[in-house]
Amino acid sequence: MSDLDGFCQNAFSDLNSLNQQVFKANYAVRGALAILADEIQDDLLENPSSYPFSEIVYANIGNPQQMGQSPITFVRQVLSLCQYPTLLDHAEEKWFQNLFPTDVVQRSKMLLKESGSLGAYSASQGIPLVRRHVADFIRARDGFDCEPSDIYLTSGASHAARLIMTLIIARPTDGVMVPAPQYPLYGAQIDLMSGSMVSYSLSEENNWDIDFDQFKKSFDEASKKGINVRLCVVINPGNPTGACISENSMEKVLRFAKAKGIVLLADEVYQNNIYQNKFHSFRRKLGELREKEPDNHWDQVSLISVNSVSKGQFGECGQRGGYLDVVNIPEPAKDQILKLATIDICPPVAGQLLVDMLVNPPKPGDPSYDLFIKEVDEIHEALRLQCRQLYEGTKRMKRVSCLEPHGAMYLHPSVSLPEKLITTAKAQKIQPDEFYAIELLKRSGICVVPGSGFGQPEGDYHIRITFLAKGTEYIERFVKAHNEIMDLYE
Amino acid sequence: MSDLDGFCQNAFSDLNSLNQQVFKANYAVRGALAILADEIQDDLLENPSSYPFSEIVYANIGNPQQMGQSPITFVRQVLSLCQYPTLLDHAEEKWFQNLFPTDVVQRSKMLLKESGSLGAYSASQGIPLVRRHVADFIRARDGFDCEPSDIYLTSGASHAARLIMTLIIARPTDGVMVPAPQYPLYGAQIDLMSGSMVSYSLSEENNWDIDFDQFKKSFDEASKKGINVRLCVVINPGNPTGACISENSMEKVLRFAKAKGIVLLADEVYQNNIYQNKFHSFRRKLGELREKEPDNHWDQVSLISVNSVSKGQFGECGQRGGYLDVVNIPEPAKDQILKLATIDICPPVAGQLLVDMLVNPPKPGDPSYDLFIKEVDEIHEALRLQCRQLYEGTKRMKRVSCLEPHGAMYLHPSVSLPEKLITTAKAQKIQPDEFYAIELLKRSGICVVPGSGFGQPEGDYHIRITFLAKGTEYIERFVKAHNEIMDLYE
Repeated sequence: MSDLDGFCQNAFSDLNSLNQQVFKANYAVRGALAILADEIQDDLLENPSSYPFSEIVYANIGNPQQMGQSPITFVRQVLSLCQYPTLLDHAEEKWFQNLFPTDVVQRSKMLLKESGSLGAYSASQGIPLVRRHVADFIRARDGFDCEPSDIYLTSGASHAARLIMTLIIARPTDGVMVPAPQYPLYGAQIDLMSGSMVSYSLSEENNWDIDFDQFKKSFDEASKKGINVRLCVVINPGNPTGACISENSMEKVLRFAKAKGIVLLADEVYQNNIYQNKFHSFRRKLGELREKEPDNHWDQVSLISVNSVSKGQFGECGQRGGYLDVVNIPEPAKDQILKLATIDICPPVAGQLLVDMLVNPPKPGDPSYDLFIKEVDEIHEALRLQCRQLYEGTKRMKRVSCLEPHGAMYLHPSVSLPEKLITTAKAQKIQPDEFYAIELLKRSGICVVPGSGFGQPEGDYHIRITFLAKGTEYIERFVKAHNEIMDLYE
Repeated sequence: MSDLDGFCQNAFSDLNSLNQQVFKANYAVRGALAILADEIQDDLLENPSSYPFSEIVYANIGNPQQMGQSPITFVRQVLSLCQYPTLLDHAEEKWFQNLFPTDVVQRSKMLLKESGSLGAYSASQGIPLVRRHVADFIRARDGFDCEPSDIYLTSGASHAARLIMTLIIARPTDGVMVPAPQYPLYGAQIDLMSGSMVSYSLSEENNWDIDFDQFKKSFDEASKKGINVRLCVVINPGNPTGACISENSMEKVLRFAKAKGIVLLADEVYQNNIYQNKFHSFRRKLGELREKEPDNHWDQVSLISVNSVSKGQFGECGQRGGYLDVVNIPEPAKDQILKLATIDICPPVAGQLLVDMLVNPPKPGDPSYDLFIKEVDEIHEALRLQCRQLYEGTKRMKRVSCLEPHGAMYLHPSVSLPEKLITTAKAQKIQPDEFYAIELLKRSGICVVPGSGFGQPEGDYHIRITFLAKGTEYIERFVKAHNEIMDLYE
């Protein structure tokens, strides 16, 4: 038979031949339950009376603008002019001046000059001016030095985490510590890199803070199994917990990282979503320790922090912008981070400009300042209120206990599922909390993420629910459906 | 010593402990030479007389808008309204109507309705309406069926290639065939996935077409070495060659893929950059063969094609939009492609809207149609002219032979480097073509990519140069500097 005849099965016909790490990876936030929610939404469009609710509340994803949060006017005015610079030719006309404040015009012109065009590739590390502004912002926030060469613009925190994990995970025994519960994207990326995930339990009794004894125990157990822990993810404020890590725990983790040679990856994307305390970055804590103990080798602690335009009050998830900043990483290793960024070509330029506005917002006296602050404050207060209302709602739910979160966009209540529900779920080979979430979705239209997607102790059940939805009507539906499910299986 | 004392080196202190595949990966288009060009550009800003030219011509990257190509008005008007929908409130006012045609308003409203907001995450596979439009476009282009479920929106062709390679490369012996010369991003991604790159030489004598005997030989040699070729990349029109693959070669590659069970990945991002022939997609060729030979198991050939908004006449590189479409991939494997897309969350929404406009441009009779066509044609004609002018320039260069390209944005001339230059370069441990490119950059300010970055036979030297720069002044500088270098080393 010639080389041009016949046929042969290819890689896709034999699933076992494909990269099994992809099959292993799981990202529950956008998993089977979200797909069911979409199907129900489609059913509702065809037949609005097919369910006892009129639309799905996507409380599974931290997607503020999908839930009705308005974008910040200043930000969108600048991006609008950058998309269509011809508008700037009308800057002397009345209608233009009524619509676009002068600082919007100035910012647009500056960003257009730096980027050339929203349609031109930028440097892979990001637009130099934007990186300078990020460094200025970090320096002002933390009170310690930061250089533009420490900044890499990204298409978001997930991209940042992928770059770092790709470089650090070199063999299957390379371990990455992640909190339990964790934002499952980290687990998925560790799977894709064939690394070993090492979970450390957060302490629900202690307001989801890091339990340092548990932390050490996880490390020790992993070491005994031959796992070489090289990276540790900390999420502050927490996802899914909404809790801030105490400064005491931050210090212990930093000391431990120094003692054991563990690189820290601090996910700080919720740094502007804090409702009680003030944000304290890991970078700042490291700087404070270095200042206090100048001879204690703090320059041996490599820290990478990530931030994003998706969260906070911008909520610009779909525009894909963010950055990572590094401390104490030797130049040859930084060159490799840059090379990985190069292979991704460059982050979306509009997202890079959003980073510029995040770190360098209008200043007092600027024409846009008052409106900017008003909008940011309103969004912040609305989230605080929605958080409070949902939290109050959980108090009326049977078998539920919930901590009032410090920050982020989530409640992570514990649900003591009835034995009968657990047996019913297991008989159907479904996780009990997933079974519960499906029931809740079908009865109330509210889509949450089962705690098993984030990791929880055996026999403990949680759900993660965003408090991005406005109003209290959905909360009543949630309480009612929840209590019905409990009554049914109790 | 307690767990909180002392210090220990971490992953970044020991380069050998990091993922060596990252060190191995190389993406010459944005490599050392591009960094040198940036340094010279910085020097010029400080001291404009430090070089015999006033600015760098970045002829190393296919980045049209950086080189002065204007964006398409319709596209930017729509994106401007989508960024700042408040403008739509003024649709009844005179100034608005003078600026924004009614079809721009309609398209903006439709896309805003579908996306919710540019700032909201979309479905990971992409906005459903946009995927429907892509399927319609492919169906009309090729005359064969295409379903929205076959379409995955991406942040560009590199992202698409990463998704596919991540799924298919499962072990170091898994081979991916790539053309030589190749766009080096493929080699870099194969390295990151620890796969084996299997080069097949294109035939410069035969206008850079696939030489099928060489193609088979590469496959056979790899097989003998124990490499299991699972994927084959074809680039049409070619990068860096600018050549279209003949229909005869396309058919042979498809038959071979069927006989050997090789998945095809067709990079067709230059499908609108063709200056001689008409574009013939691999998807269409596969459909034709299936129609002609219905019993010949053509449904066993899995094909993935990629397209992008970065090239063609849009040239919207920095907005990061594109798509991949698949043929004959079983559902369970498609689920895994979707899962990988999910881990990247979603492509930039503005980029997704650009895809919509790429595949569904203004129609005859629409208010924007005439200007749209005029702009597209002008860009196309300008590129054809620039290509011609640069090609003519190469004829006046000593020791250079160049094929007139069919498409893409590149010339890939062969340079017969003088022996003395080769020895000088090797003595400095630099590739001779890189040495040449550095000399050219310093003398003329023109940044090209040495052929060694794309792969070329031992002792053969090429450069890749984009023809995106306007005018002929830089061509004269290029010819002069080139001939000086030749004279110096001859």
